Amino acid sequence: MNTIEKNISAIDFVHDLARLRAATPLVQNITNYVVMNNTANALLAIGASPAMVHAREEIAEFAAISSALVVNIGTLSPPWVLSMLKAVGHFGTQKKPIVLDPVGAGATTFRTTTAIDLLETGHISIVRGNAAEIMALAGHTGAGRGVDSLSKTNEAEDAAKFLASKYNVTVCVSGEVDMILNQGTKYNVVGGHPIMTKVTGMGCTASAICAAFAAIEPDFARAASHAMATMAIAAEQAAKQAAGPGSFQMHFIDALHTLSEGQIISKYASK
Amino acid sequence: MNTIEKNISAIDFVHDLARLRAATPLVQNITNYVVMNNTANALLAIGASPAMVHAREEIAEFAAISSALVVNIGTLSPPWVLSMLKAVGHFGTQKKPIVLDPVGAGATTFRTTTAIDLLETGHISIVRGNAAEIMALAGHTGAGRGVDSLSKTNEAEDAAKFLASKYNVTVCVSGEVDMILNQGTKYNVVGGHPIMTKVTGMGCTASAICAAFAAIEPDFARAASHAMATMAIAAEQAAKQAAGPGSFQMHFIDALHTLSEGQIISKYASK
Amino acid sequence: MNTIEKNISAIDFVHDLARLRAATPLVQNITNYVVMNNTANALLAIGASPAMVHAREEIAEFAAISSALVVNIGTLSPPWVLSMLKAVGHFGTQKKPIVLDPVGAGATTFRTTTAIDLLETGHISIVRGNAAEIMALAGHTGAGRGVDSLSKTNEAEDAAKFLASKYNVTVCVSGEVDMILNQGTKYNVVGGHPIMTKVTGMGCTASAICAAFAAIEPDFARAASHAMATMAIAAEQAAKQAAGPGSFQMHFIDALHTLSEGQIISKYASK
Repeated sequence: MNTIEKNISAIDFVHDLARLRAATPLVQNITNYVVMNNTANALLAIGASPAMVHAREEIAEFAAISSALVVNIGTLSPPWVLSMLKAVGHFGTQKKPIVLDPVGAGATTFRTTTAIDLLETGHISIVRGNAAEIMALAGHTGAGRGVDSLSKTNEAEDAAKFLASKYNVTVCVSGEVDMILNQGTKYNVVGGHPIMTKVTGMGCTASAICAAFAAIEPDFARAASHAMATMAIAAEQAAKQAAGPGSFQMHFIDALHTLSEGQIISKYASK
Repeated sequence: MNTIEKNISAIDFVHDLARLRAATPLVQNITNYVVMNNTANALLAIGASPAMVHAREEIAEFAAISSALVVNIGTLSPPWVLSMLKAVGHFGTQKKPIVLDPVGAGATTFRTTTAIDLLETGHISIVRGNAAEIMALAGHTGAGRGVDSLSKTNEAEDAAKFLASKYNVTVCVSGEVDMILNQGTKYNVVGGHPIMTKVTGMGCTASAICAAFAAIEPDFARAASHAMATMAIAAEQAAKQAAGPGSFQMHFIDALHTLSEGQIISKYASK
Repeated sequence: MNTIEKNISAIDFVHDLARLRAATPLVQNITNYVVMNNTANALLAIGASPAMVHAREEIAEFAAISSALVVNIGTLSPPWVLSMLKAVGHFGTQKKPIVLDPVGAGATTFRTTTAIDLLETGHISIVRGNAAEIMALAGHTGAGRGVDSLSKTNEAEDAAKFLASKYNVTVCVSGEVDMILNQGTKYNVVGGHPIMTKVTGMGCTASAICAAFAAIEPDFARAASHAMATMAIAAEQAAKQAAGPGSFQMHFIDALHTLSEGQIISKYASK
């Protein structure tokens, strides 16, 4: 099967962002303790509505009212794994989009196994991770040491294709160039800023933004590419004003909030 | 019974803020993971001393040394519910003020039931929520979808009066106009800024500030009205400097810290 | 045994910071919910690599790949205590440095007992706390009311010496003047800013920075003194730009990131 390489379309991106902001989709997050505040604020800033809910007692009801789910394994423990599996079942049965962020996959057996278990449900829509995590999931023995991002884009592409095919998912490998691919389509998203690697949870934010776009756009490669392009523009804007990673984190949230049609056209219209 | 409508008195507000800062009351918070950092910083900024403690093993000892308690159901799980019930029992027996923040009540049975269980103890002093949450607690079927704030002030007032009467609590319904009422008194607090709805945990911060004022003022309607007026002034100051929700969140903490007699008099003296 | 009083050496400090940034040591943190985001960002900003991991299932594997461990008892619960004990065992057996932050020791039996249990393992390298916490651990009945810092440096010194001798640890008592001592050496580190007491988790950040320096320097008194001097310079830089505790917290992270040889030499070279 041939993969069609696509570029970000300014018109589609503007359209999807407008739809996201009009819909304010409720995105449930079963995510790690480290990033909950930033993730919730990023979802609010881009125009979605966040719910950070992990109790098994609440999953059926939240799945009924939410538009998308994020499962993020950053600070795992067994009860949270059970909640993730239950939530993935409920959202999956309702054909609602689910984003898996396999934080630190490859670093420990518990993480790798949990991420694979979630993929094996057959309900995951998008997997977003760095190259080491994606390679670990694909059975490669990447140099995974926690959440550090590596820049092994070439090896990562094979891993992403393997996962996309095996689990029928869209895979987003974030790095200097973000690569989004599934069985039919591939996008490369250029942009962002190196200081993103010095701020905790930027990947987690990206996964949540993927879920927000997937909530309004069933073409998940398109949704993920617009999410990563959103990250890229916001990071570039924030980096212009930041004096370090602390101020970058703040300006980044502001930049998500003020992301405009004009900025999108200026970056992507001529392509 | 007649309800007396009261306005914020600049003199009382200045007096209570000075007492709060002199007393630096220790406020225990059993709250959600998303807002713990912001809530602790907000309590420090206004002049209180925060303790974020949830273990059942520590509740008796913390209740003995703390001046007020916040129970916030934002990221519930059964062990935390047990801790909340135990803590409410200990603080209640010692006649120390307790603020309940029923985050997302109405969205799931677990949340609504837990909030009602906490109210049924008879020990809650102040309930602070948005209109949807207060209506859900009062048995109305509000359009509760998580933690979004609605602006159904009229329906909410009936719900607030119902809860105030049934549980002998002070109810604070936050929104464009914050309404604080109990069986004898009603305050309307005008102010704040729309961007507050784009920052996660502003309501949770308001609940914690309510507890800080309640720690030094047994008239809970007065305490809650000064807490909400504190939020309003700080939000207005922060909004002047903010370029978006990220910078608003930072300036808001600064504004709590620098909240001055002069600002209070300038806003409330002529009323 | 005589204790040698030492001063910060600009050359050693510059050298250790350069080694830290070159090594980017992976520091595992089993820490409290309140500060996880700030701690991770502080470790990234100074040049280390953070992992916030608490599951017992992951401890053996993380201990194998990490260079240092922080155990921080700020928001304890029994499962986390078990994880801390297990992690301390694994890191200790591998002779990897471990920093204990006994947040709120003395405030409750559960905290004091847990901190003592961790010390009794014999594997702790550095204990960093405020005077009240250190005194509580030494069996003094300090006026411990949660995490507030006191300035009882004189009484604290005896407590620190007692702990250093009994458990063969380096003790860091933070306050207006930070005192670092073990059985052979003592440093006093002057600096910082009073607004640090109005920001939650500055002590927790200090403990994590201690672990980052200890990962590259086996003289733990030297490592801790460079960590505290790092905190002092960053706080002084941040305070120059801050309008309150909210902006201080942001500028502080920026200042860790931009901490330079020039700043170190300017502050410590003539001493």
